[in-house]
Order: sequence, then structure tokens, then C-alpha cells
Amino acid sequence: MNKILPDINSHFAEWYQDIVYQAELADHSPVRGCMVIRPYGYALWENIRDIVDKKIKDTGHQNAAFPLFIPTSFIEKEAQHVEGFAPELAVVTHAGGKELEEPLVVRPTSETIIHYMFARWIKSYRDLPLKINQWANVVRWEMRTRPFLRTGEFYWQEGHTAHETAQEAQDEAELMWKEYVDVYQNYLAIPVVAGVKSESEKFAGADRTYTVEGLMQDGKALQMCTSHIISQNFAKAFGMAFQSREGKLEYPYLTSWGFTTRSIGAVVMTHGDQKGLILPPKIAPIQVVIVPIYKTAEQQLQVLNVANDILKDNPTIRIYIDADEQETPGAKYYKWELRGVPLRLEIGPRDIANGVVMLVDRLGNPKEAVPVSELSNALKDRLVLIQTMMFDRAKKRIEKQWHKKEKLSDFGSDLSANGGLYQTGWCRRSECEQKLKEYSATIRCIYNEHNFSVCFACDNPSPCDILIAKSY
Amino acid sequence: MNKILPDINSHFAEWYQDIVYQAELADHSPVRGCMVIRPYGYALWENIRDIVDKKIKDTGHQNAAFPLFIPTSFIEKEAQHVEGFAPELAVVTHAGGKELEEPLVVRPTSETIIHYMFARWIKSYRDLPLKINQWANVVRWEMRTRPFLRTGEFYWQEGHTAHETAQEAQDEAELMWKEYVDVYQNYLAIPVVAGVKSESEKFAGADRTYTVEGLMQDGKALQMCTSHIISQNFAKAFGMAFQSREGKLEYPYLTSWGFTTRSIGAVVMTHGDQKGLILPPKIAPIQVVIVPIYKTAEQQLQVLNVANDILKDNPTIRIYIDADEQETPGAKYYKWELRGVPLRLEIGPRDIANGVVMLVDRLGNPKEAVPVSELSNALKDRLVLIQTMMFDRAKKRIEKQWHKKEKLSDFGSDLSANGGLYQTGWCRRSECEQKLKEYSATIRCIYNEHNFSVCFACDNPSPCDILIAKSY
Repeated sequence: MNKILPDINSHFAEWYQDIVYQAELADHSPVRGCMVIRPYGYALWENIRDIVDKKIKDTGHQNAAFPLFIPTSFIEKEAQHVEGFAPELAVVTHAGGKELEEPLVVRPTSETIIHYMFARWIKSYRDLPLKINQWANVVRWEMRTRPFLRTGEFYWQEGHTAHETAQEAQDEAELMWKEYVDVYQNYLAIPVVAGVKSESEKFAGADRTYTVEGLMQDGKALQMCTSHIISQNFAKAFGMAFQSREGKLEYPYLTSWGFTTRSIGAVVMTHGDQKGLILPPKIAPIQVVIVPIYKTAEQQLQVLNVANDILKDNPTIRIYIDADEQETPGAKYYKWELRGVPLRLEIGPRDIANGVVMLVDRLGNPKEAVPVSELSNALKDRLVLIQTMMFDRAKKRIEKQWHKKEKLSDFGSDLSANGGLYQTGWCRRSECEQKLKEYSATIRCIYNEHNFSVCFACDNPSPCDILIAKSY
Repeated sequence: MNKILPDINSHFAEWYQDIVYQAELADHSPVRGCMVIRPYGYALWENIRDIVDKKIKDTGHQNAAFPLFIPTSFIEKEAQHVEGFAPELAVVTHAGGKELEEPLVVRPTSETIIHYMFARWIKSYRDLPLKINQWANVVRWEMRTRPFLRTGEFYWQEGHTAHETAQEAQDEAELMWKEYVDVYQNYLAIPVVAGVKSESEKFAGADRTYTVEGLMQDGKALQMCTSHIISQNFAKAFGMAFQSREGKLEYPYLTSWGFTTRSIGAVVMTHGDQKGLILPPKIAPIQVVIVPIYKTAEQQLQVLNVANDILKDNPTIRIYIDADEQETPGAKYYKWELRGVPLRLEIGPRDIANGVVMLVDRLGNPKEAVPVSELSNALKDRLVLIQTMMFDRAKKRIEKQWHKKEKLSDFGSDLSANGGLYQTGWCRRSECEQKLKEYSATIRCIYNEHNFSVCFACDNPSPCDILIAKSY
């Protein structure tokens, strides 16, 4: 039997750590900050990854692979980039029994090495657009780590593209940003807050960063993924000149965009409850768990036969029969609730006699006796319903945590004490942005609405709204 | 237009390097020994990977992920293991701006870190068997590298399992070995030579290594993948004791097995010819390329309409329409032959008038006019036929290169000059094995036949045959 989880309302951070380990998504690692992702967590990641990979391919990108190691001189070629990443780098100084002449950085992101290759591949406008993606592990040596949310090594895809015009690059960065929004909302059932990062929060080396953020149950925002228009400085630093349609030498316009294992943390913190995880059906490794109930060996055989028939009749549904003979049905209910399986079927001899199975969902809807003949449709319908209910439930919760306020002096203490998302105005000056520090908050994004005409901190005008929150 | 390839018969090594780059499987990398795998090469790897991944899951293994970095102390826990890998390690000494207290090794293989976790997870016989797989990049700092065949960083899956009994571990190692043979023979169309490694050639830390080898066109063997029964020393070194059915403390029996991007090199070197790659249909990123032939804009439209209909009518076949307006049909034939696409369809106005398309395969079978109404079946049948022909062709070639000889004194100079596989007897003594060094050859495996009663180098008896070759 697992330990009882910490109270989700009063001890959210502890609840998070405990559920990640108890549900066997991940385990404590002997290497500081590097994750051990267990099979249940990895199956969840594979389902998410397959959705993202399909979208990347359907939008005309091709997967490739680039070296894990990046020469130090590459990282140093773009000034903002090296400034942003230098404090987090892991460095290989020795290899093959010798000290290396030039130390190698373990990639924190791959702009520099991919741009080096782009410069080899892009000679003419006919080589554009170039649209490449890589699934990879990257390393950023962080001081404080938490499984999935902030780790020394994490897994992601990083898309890198080059275009003839600034407009095409902007369209590309916005397209992938919107694809990410679709993944979060329509597959992970997480309502998003999407906008543009302020100068101080954007990617080291980007002209513009589009962000997809979520608001977790504790009122803190989580940056869930980003899409960047990359500075042409990179193209210049790596000599990426190409011959334009007009026969002139020009530099391409670049984008990059990434989606990481942090998404698993977002799922846990958006949907979980006091009983444990709740996984959206579209990504749940197990969508339906069958718990057989019996007393005699004869009943066991009969019940397992029915369970196996259900498995065979529904090849498109991810069904697991928990046939463990050592655990009680009650222990199994507890275990699979903890692991967030959306649907449970209980099958006992009396149910079989009545031609039904008992359908129980993870959201607490009333238990239902479903005739076996109607089960396939009932399962499909209920999985769709749960997916929708999860999104709606999260959306309602976030609407409650979303406040519109004019002045920091009015909302600062509430924000600091209780979290939540604050929509307000901003003059775009860094000195006003800095005032959020004392409330442990940041501008999460510039938001495409214009309700506030004046800055939250001064009396200067605000060109459009922003969203402020504490964050992970 | 691409450069002409070096002569495949007289300059096989140069031919190999050139075709890998010209066919855009990989590119030269700015990081010594680390690969840049280009989209065409990566798509090939994805197809191979998906076949292997499905087999791994179908045989009851679960994917997971373990840290890239391994503490130096872990690697040092098993004596043979550290001795085998120490010369090839890449070491992170600095991270986050500081020198690390304990340097971290970039994993050359993950036995040690996975066994550390196994020790946490295995408490009782009820936790066994434990069957885990990881898809990962690993780093072995090699002196001489060649794309796909021997690289500083490569990609692989590494399976790691733990079992109650020695018999179960042996069954597991043999099962995965046979699955690998199936992948090579029935998907990559590569006839294999499968056997057991000698003491000197087995994996550092294994009790027994099963190997799958191929014989390349130049007569050199390539170790294509291996499956190991791992020494119980690992289980002991990591404190992996569990409570047995009898209530005693016992150590589990371990296996590991891996399949790498080297498989791409095996495909290139087994099937390629003077025109370039030849890819087996089951793994080819493009199975059928359509080359439209036209003179007028009207013809172009008409031909592309037919091409698009073919694409739509055959969703299960990987078809690419090369609609590039800048290249001639002849240049396209050359390009896709170089890249090894198994089938080409040529469609011109006269073909359309006759209700046919021209079908050309990469093996040189006669060009055929196929009625459009019969095309779907013709494509499917021809892809199956090519797959079979490729295996048969490679098998015949290998049979010619496979010699049975009694004494090294008789075959040593032929082996040294021309390569090839030599089946013979061996007394199992290291001093006889060492004599192969002067012929630049090694024992590739102990082979499950018994044709020779005496050792190739001395007069002692041979318990069963072995296979000798030069190798990559």
C-alpha cells in the first residue's frame, strides 16, 4: 500500500513530489538533477511525443540528429546566447584518456551547432525554407531541480528553421506556437495562456519569444513551451549567407521552438487531486483498467474470460487487466486511482449473471452498470466525455484565478500571498517590470487584449495588456 | 549533379564514405567522431527503430529513461567493465561554473546506472522478471571513426533485464538475439552469421555474448548487434539482493542487449552498388519515387494529376513525387538511384494516352509498362519481390565468401589478402586465437556446427566450429 499523499491544497509542492514518485512516473536519481523516468512516466511521454512528432511532420518538417557535444567556440559566437547559457553549462574536458584541446559543452540547446550545419546546406534561395527538427536530450545545470519541471537533463524536441523573409520566419514561429497550443488544449486538456515574452524574459538570442503558459492549481504559472524568432546575428555569426532571387548575398531569417518533458509536470499539476494523478484519456498509457472480482477459481476463470473478450473487442482502446492474485480489488482501485487511469471496469460473477460490467470514472461521476453489448460505445463515449470534462474543469478553475486589476499597489499583496494570474497594463519600461520582484512575480507574457490604458506601476500609457504571475 | 562514386570493388572504403555523404544519409560533423544524421538517414533510422521498438514491446519489455551522466564510482564498481570502457570515456569535470566533486562519465552503456536503480526496485521474487529498455545516445571516444560504423556518439536501444534463474536469463538473451536476427534478415534483408563470442571478444562484464554478424561486400565482417548474459558480479556490486520464493536472499541473473545506428552502415555495405545505395523496401524512407515527364504546361498538369491520384490511391506505400521543375528527368533518375529508392515510376503524356505508367526497379529488372488500373497490386508485389531478391542476392554473395578450411597455414594468406569468412575448428586456447593477429583477423564467433575436429592452429581437438574473418 502506498503512503497517503500530502494535502494538495496546503502542501502543493510536497504533493507534487510525492505523486510523481508514488505513481511511478519517475524515481529519485543518483545523479543530481538528472531524471530516472520509469516505464509508466515514459509511456506517457511517448504518447505526448507521438502527437507532437506527427504535427511537426504534418507541417513539413524533417527529423534529423546533431551532436550531443558543442565546441566551446560555437557557444561563444553569439553574445546574448553565451551570456544566457554560460552559468548552466556542463563541460567535457577529458575524453579517451586525454585532456581535450578545446573543451566540449554538453548541448543546452542546439542553435549553434545546427546553424553551423545550416551554413553548409544553405547556398541559394532554392535551399529555403529549411525546416529541421531534432528529438534529443539537453543539459542545463540548474541549482534547484524538481522532476519534470526543472532538471539538469531533460528530453525535448527542438525545431530549427531558416527562411527567405522575415515574414515567413514570423509565420513559422507563430504556426508552431499555435500547434503547441493545440497539443496542450486538445490533447493534454490544459487551457493555456499564450502571448509574447517581454525583453527580459525572452530566449537568449531571440528577437521575439512566443510562449505557452499554464496556470497550475496553486496559482503559479508554468512556462510550458516556447517558439522563437531568432536574431539574424546567428546567421551572420555562422556565415549563413545565401544567394537571393535577385542574385545578392543575404542572410536567412531563423526560428526555433521546443517542447519538453516539462509537459508531464504540467499534466500532473493541472489535473491531479487528493487521490493522485488524473490523466487525460488521449495521452493516458492505460485508458481503462479492468479489475476482476471473484472468490472461487471457477469465478476467476469466468471473470477473466469476460475481461479478455473486452480487451480483444476494443483494439483501439488502451486496456489493462489487473489480474494480480495477491492484491485485493480495493487495493487495486486505490493504486489505479493514484496513477490517474481515467476509467475502471469492475467485473464480478453477479455482474456477469446480469450481463453487465460496472463502469467507474476517475472524475467521480456516478458508477454505472453497462450492458456488455453496449460496452464498446460506452467506453469510447466516456473517454471523450472525460477528456472534455477535464479541460472544462481546468478552464473554470483558471478563470477563477484570473484577475483584472489596474495597479500593483492594489493586487501585489494578493498575488504574493495567493498566486493567480493578473491581467493589467504596462508601459514597457524595465524599471516598472523590476518592481514585480518584491512580490516574487514576473510578467508571464504580453497578452493580445487592450483593457488597460495605463501601466500597473506608473502613469505612462500601456500599448496592450500583460499577464503577471508567480511562476515555476 | 553529384560526383561519381569511387569504384566499389577496388575502393570499397572510399565508396562507403562517399555514398554516405552523397546520398545525404549523414554529413561531416564539426565535432570529432559525432554524427550529423541528415533527414534522409534519420528517416531510415526511424523506420528501423520502429521495427525494433515494436519487437521489444511485443516481447514484454517497457521503455524508460536513465541519466546521461554516470558517477565515476559507478563505472568502477565492476572490474572487467571499467577495464573495458575506461580508455573510451568522455568525462564532465565542470558544470554550472564549478568543478564537480566527483567527475561524471558520459554513458558509454548504462549497465551500472540501471543496475543501481534495479537494486532499488527489486526486493522480492515478485518484482522479477524486470524487463526494461532505453533508447538513448551513448558516447565512446574512439580513435578512428567512420559514419555509422564507429562513432564517438551513436544512437541505440539498450535492453536490461533481471531474472530469478540463470535459465530464464539465458532464454531472454537468446530470445532477443533471435529477434535481432529476424530484424536483420526479414526487414534489412541482410543474411546474418550468428554465434557466441570467444572470451577475448565478449562484452566487458558479460558471462556470455551472443553476436549477430554480417559479411560485407569487401569480405570483412561487421558485428551488427549483441545480446549478453551479464555477470552476477554486477548484481553483487550494486547490492541487488532479493528475497527468493524460499525466503532466502539471492542475486538476480541479468541480461543486456543493444541495437545501434551501425545497422545503417550494414545496410549500405551489404546492398549498395556502383550507382549508390539500394534500400530494402521495408525500411526505405521512399519506396516509390514518381518522376513526371512533360514538355508543355498542359502536359505537366496532366502528368502531375495522375501522379497525385497514385499517391492518394496507395496510402500504405511511401511514395514521393519529384516535381522539381529545375531538374531533368535524367538527373532525377540518377539522384534517386544514388539514394537507393527501390522503385521508380516514369509518367509521360504518351504513357497516359496508353493508360500505363513505366515501372523501373533499382535491381535492374526489365522496365515494365503497367496499366494504371493494375498499379496498386503491381507496386505491392514488386516491393515484396525486391525485398526477397535483395536477401537472396546477399545470401548468394556471402555463400561464395564463406570457406571451410582446416588449417590457418592453408587459408591465412587468402584471408589476409581477400577477406571472407573462414569456418574451421578451434581448441579454445587463447594462444591459438592470438595467431590470427598477424592476418589482421579475429574469431567472429563460435558457430553451432561441428565439421572440424581439430584446432586451426594446433593439433588439439575442437569442441565445435568457429568463424574467422577480418572485421570492422
